[in-house]
Amino acid sequence: MSEEVVIHKGLDNVIIDESRLSLVNGAEGKLIYAGYKIEDLAEHALYEEVVYLLWNNRLPTSTELESLRAEIAAGAEVPASVMAMVQQFPKESDPMAVLRTAVSALALYDPDANDSSPEANRRKAARMTGQVTTLTAAWPRIRKGLAPVAPRKDFNLAQNFMYMLNETEPEVNAVNAVNAFMVLLTEHGMNASTFVGRATTSTKSDMHSAIVSAVGTLKGPLHGGANTEAMRMFLEIGEVANVAPWFDQKVKKGGGKIMGIGHRVYKAYDPRAAVLRDRAEKLARASGNGKWFDIADSLANLALADEYFIERKLYPNVDYYSAIVLYTLGLEVDMFTPLFAMSRMAGWTAHIMEQTANNRLMRPDVVYTGAVDLPWVALADRK
Amino acid sequence: MSEEVVIHKGLDNVIIDESRLSLVNGAEGKLIYAGYKIEDLAEHALYEEVVYLLWNNRLPTSTELESLRAEIAAGAEVPASVMAMVQQFPKESDPMAVLRTAVSALALYDPDANDSSPEANRRKAARMTGQVTTLTAAWPRIRKGLAPVAPRKDFNLAQNFMYMLNETEPEVNAVNAVNAFMVLLTEHGMNASTFVGRATTSTKSDMHSAIVSAVGTLKGPLHGGANTEAMRMFLEIGEVANVAPWFDQKVKKGGGKIMGIGHRVYKAYDPRAAVLRDRAEKLARASGNGKWFDIADSLANLALADEYFIERKLYPNVDYYSAIVLYTLGLEVDMFTPLFAMSRMAGWTAHIMEQTANNRLMRPDVVYTGAVDLPWVALADRK
Repeated sequence: MSEEVVIHKGLDNVIIDESRLSLVNGAEGKLIYAGYKIEDLAEHALYEEVVYLLWNNRLPTSTELESLRAEIAAGAEVPASVMAMVQQFPKESDPMAVLRTAVSALALYDPDANDSSPEANRRKAARMTGQVTTLTAAWPRIRKGLAPVAPRKDFNLAQNFMYMLNETEPEVNAVNAVNAFMVLLTEHGMNASTFVGRATTSTKSDMHSAIVSAVGTLKGPLHGGANTEAMRMFLEIGEVANVAPWFDQKVKKGGGKIMGIGHRVYKAYDPRAAVLRDRAEKLARASGNGKWFDIADSLANLALADEYFIERKLYPNVDYYSAIVLYTLGLEVDMFTPLFAMSRMAGWTAHIMEQTANNRLMRPDVVYTGAVDLPWVALADRK
Repeated sequence: MSEEVVIHKGLDNVIIDESRLSLVNGAEGKLIYAGYKIEDLAEHALYEEVVYLLWNNRLPTSTELESLRAEIAAGAEVPASVMAMVQQFPKESDPMAVLRTAVSALALYDPDANDSSPEANRRKAARMTGQVTTLTAAWPRIRKGLAPVAPRKDFNLAQNFMYMLNETEPEVNAVNAVNAFMVLLTEHGMNASTFVGRATTSTKSDMHSAIVSAVGTLKGPLHGGANTEAMRMFLEIGEVANVAPWFDQKVKKGGGKIMGIGHRVYKAYDPRAAVLRDRAEKLARASGNGKWFDIADSLANLALADEYFIERKLYPNVDYYSAIVLYTLGLEVDMFTPLFAMSRMAGWTAHIMEQTANNRLMRPDVVYTGAVDLPWVALADRK
């Protein structure tokens, strides 16, 4: 070839579209959703308010917010056939494989499944945002042999999640923490799962297909699986006194990395991690068990003071302190990634609708490195 | 911004990797799988021979081929729990939504589901290649209230497909046509579904997740859904005598396009369409009903002689004549896309293994077009 071939493995810095949904400023550690700073949203906004913002590009009035909250709550019930299917799954199943399969099955009972008009997509986005929350709360119960709990129409999503998980009136501090987690996790530009959701949409496939692709992509340990991996690391360390020797042996001498530290885009402190660190500390102190926060924080401090990490600009990312928040709320470690998926629904659906409105089939290229025009050899003549 | 921002919407001509799997030469209308011309493979090779070629980068000896055929046939049975689940689905379900859900559920019963080692991936690739064929043959039976048929261990995949579809000893001409279709459809570089399968793999997610993403992406009418759309168009035309007025009114005056004509990459005759045209003609003549082939061929001839199509280099693609092949074999129109999926398994799994062997997380970028740093307005103050 006469032209120089440039391979964009990983698609780093390859701009694939415009988007009005979020600004991820990795150099300055800044994140904005449709105009608003993540810090303001995490402090003030209901998750449904952010859903409205992402879908409509402006904040709702109180009437509009109540209307969307009620629509999501009313559509959050999972069809009985799908819930019965999930109750048949092996109890040891990977929760993300369960969620991927259940979301795929939701399409079979959705009246708008193959309608990708703006109106139908908007209806499906509201239904699926609720249903994924219901499924996420149901699985930890189902695998213990408990019956799933139906969503309440008077609750918002964070309330409903805690209510459906424990079948008790949700406690306000827990609800606030879940709500903030959901707000902080819902949108992050062209991350791998969002990108895959948009690429699935680019063939004019339907919204359920795109969300299923996104769930399967988020499942990977380099993406949504990282919060689970971070918590397993904290559990392995076990005690604050073990942090320094663990860092020395596993990271410094062993060449290991710290799960939840470092990010493809952020070369400054992840602004979501800053908010979640604060939430994690308050929750941990209030719970009377600050051990896991202390382990996480002292490990982070070792990394933040270490030449290797400083030079490479490796800071705690969103997964690092969110692991402590979720663990303190009593969530099982392998449920952290489904909680990420449930939170990301507003962003995924907003991106799918943005892609649908101005679509082009995604079809990149590869350089072929194999042989050409080999002569055919009959089966009997091969050695 | 000081640098010029280039947006690669659709990722046209963006090279994302090297691949040894296939050469798609769109300018010359040439397609090569791991060294071998598609015309040789379609004429001589068993589908399993191409599976071996793509997975191992060379053709198998007769012993190796028989070993792989037997492994695929032995692993093609779908777990009873998954088949029972599919039998509960609404009979009017979209067959691609059924396949997507069933493949996702296969992971719950696969002993290697979350093991992405080369050995485990190779075992899963063989199992899933067989199981997707079994599921594709089962759905048209299940939705008619018939029991699914288990695969036979002594059959190859094309034989098994026709056997499981009809529960009769498969007829040799039909098997040969299915085999050739499967060979021609199995690999095509960085098409959207393959690309999405690789992008899902790039987070180190598992092979089932990647195949589920690929199935959901293939479902779209701009990709695998096109063969179904082409056949619906032929059925709408209905008679050879209607071809010329249909072309004149719908295409020339109505500004419509012809489903199955034109391709993002091929600016010459699609080499797969050439082989399939020949197969379609022979099958149609042998069946005693040449009408649908004649409709397709006369419509193609009008397009091939028309200035608009000539200037834009719009030629029949793989979906155009494959629709006639599948219809003549008695397949229902909405099953064409699942047959595409079942055929693409060798290519998808080979790409997933190639991505796994040399991975980088896919994380492109977007240009943010929204506002920044809007001041927060309390809910009560919004109008």
